[in-house]
Amino acid sequence: MKICFIVAMQAEAQPFIDRFGVSEVQSFFAPLPCKLYRARVGESELDVVLNGQQQGSDLVGCEPATVATLAAIQKLSPDLVINSGTCGAFRKNGARIGDVFVANAVMFHDRRVPGDDAWGTQSLGNYPVYERSAEVAGALAMKMGKVTTGSSLDMQPCDLKIIEENHGELKDMEGAAVAFVCSLFGTPVMLLKSVTDLCDSGAETYEIFRQNLALASQAIADANERVVRYLAKNA
Amino acid sequence: MKICFIVAMQAEAQPFIDRFGVSEVQSFFAPLPCKLYRARVGESELDVVLNGQQQGSDLVGCEPATVATLAAIQKLSPDLVINSGTCGAFRKNGARIGDVFVANAVMFHDRRVPGDDAWGTQSLGNYPVYERSAEVAGALAMKMGKVTTGSSLDMQPCDLKIIEENHGELKDMEGAAVAFVCSLFGTPVMLLKSVTDLCDSGAETYEIFRQNLALASQAIADANERVVRYLAKNA
Repeated sequence: MKICFIVAMQAEAQPFIDRFGVSEVQSFFAPLPCKLYRARVGESELDVVLNGQQQGSDLVGCEPATVATLAAIQKLSPDLVINSGTCGAFRKNGARIGDVFVANAVMFHDRRVPGDDAWGTQSLGNYPVYERSAEVAGALAMKMGKVTTGSSLDMQPCDLKIIEENHGELKDMEGAAVAFVCSLFGTPVMLLKSVTDLCDSGAETYEIFRQNLALASQAIADANERVVRYLAKNA
Repeated sequence: MKICFIVAMQAEAQPFIDRFGVSEVQSFFAPLPCKLYRARVGESELDVVLNGQQQGSDLVGCEPATVATLAAIQKLSPDLVINSGTCGAFRKNGARIGDVFVANAVMFHDRRVPGDDAWGTQSLGNYPVYERSAEVAGALAMKMGKVTTGSSLDMQPCDLKIIEENHGELKDMEGAAVAFVCSLFGTPVMLLKSVTDLCDSGAETYEIFRQNLALASQAIADANERVVRYLAKNA
């Protein structure tokens, strides 16, 4: 089973990469800035694709995630894409910093296109997730939740409105873009997210995000490894 | 000179496609939903790439534009990408419905990532536009303006704030995504936009957009043809 992780930031991926002791496959996606790390885990091929950098910082958000996912599927033909990274969550739902979630659904919360039903529905997205997501989460005692994606780190009233209307629980910046591209190819996609900040805590998101990024990246590295080993054993 | 138009909606492209009497190159981008129309104009190869459809309606917005642009550059290697379509503009700047603009700059207005300068700057984007944009606009007596891009048809206070701070004049849903992908390849990109609605008119955007889409699509078809013929003559 060929598993391909799509990760936005180097900091989010590094603990996981270090654990498998792999190094970069240089210039694999050139001229695109995406980076590839590759390893074998049992019978599985494991690829980790990062968005890469532009203008001096890690590319984050939906357009770089779209590029990375498209390039990864084209060049690596994975059996399963796993979008792994950090997210915000809601204290009112019982989430805590460092919690790891498997997505049971994924959609956009910042693509507001009113009008006829088809167009509005398409803009929200609601893409399928890997059919074994619940099985994996159950086997590894991970929580599940609905991921909603937007291009901003903050949360505006218009975002919260759509999140609440659609019962979103995990707010990230890439998941729906990765799932959208996977939906075009029919490639199964699983989302694994660890919580860096609580959107309803009243604290300034960026500071909290910075403080908790290392912790959440260790948590997601643990989760990634457990999922890879579970899928390798239970193909 | 190989020119590739990237267009979101079939309705935006159809008057232009009809004018050149070309038909679709079937399944060119399969399994991606993007569609290709191809023609020759003088010495130039002219490709028109549409996002295609999903869930029963034309794909619009930044992720489909990212996919279409990436696929187009990979498979067609154009010398110039032209993102052509409709946009909102501001009455206070003297814009009118059906006006055609050439972009002199392009950025995102809905990717709010505060924090250190590099990350915030990268999220806003500010990608280069084709170095002959001003020459073409001047020769064809077209207006110029700064395009800002977001994933929504409406305009929230947080969008307007960023648009005003950055002196945005034309509000669209694809331009910066197209320009971002072009920036990764170093492919020159020109943006041609015709105005469907005035963001500061107080009217509901979607209704106005619908009413003016056919008019604006005729205007952009005229502009596209004039630009193609100008570039063919002045390579």
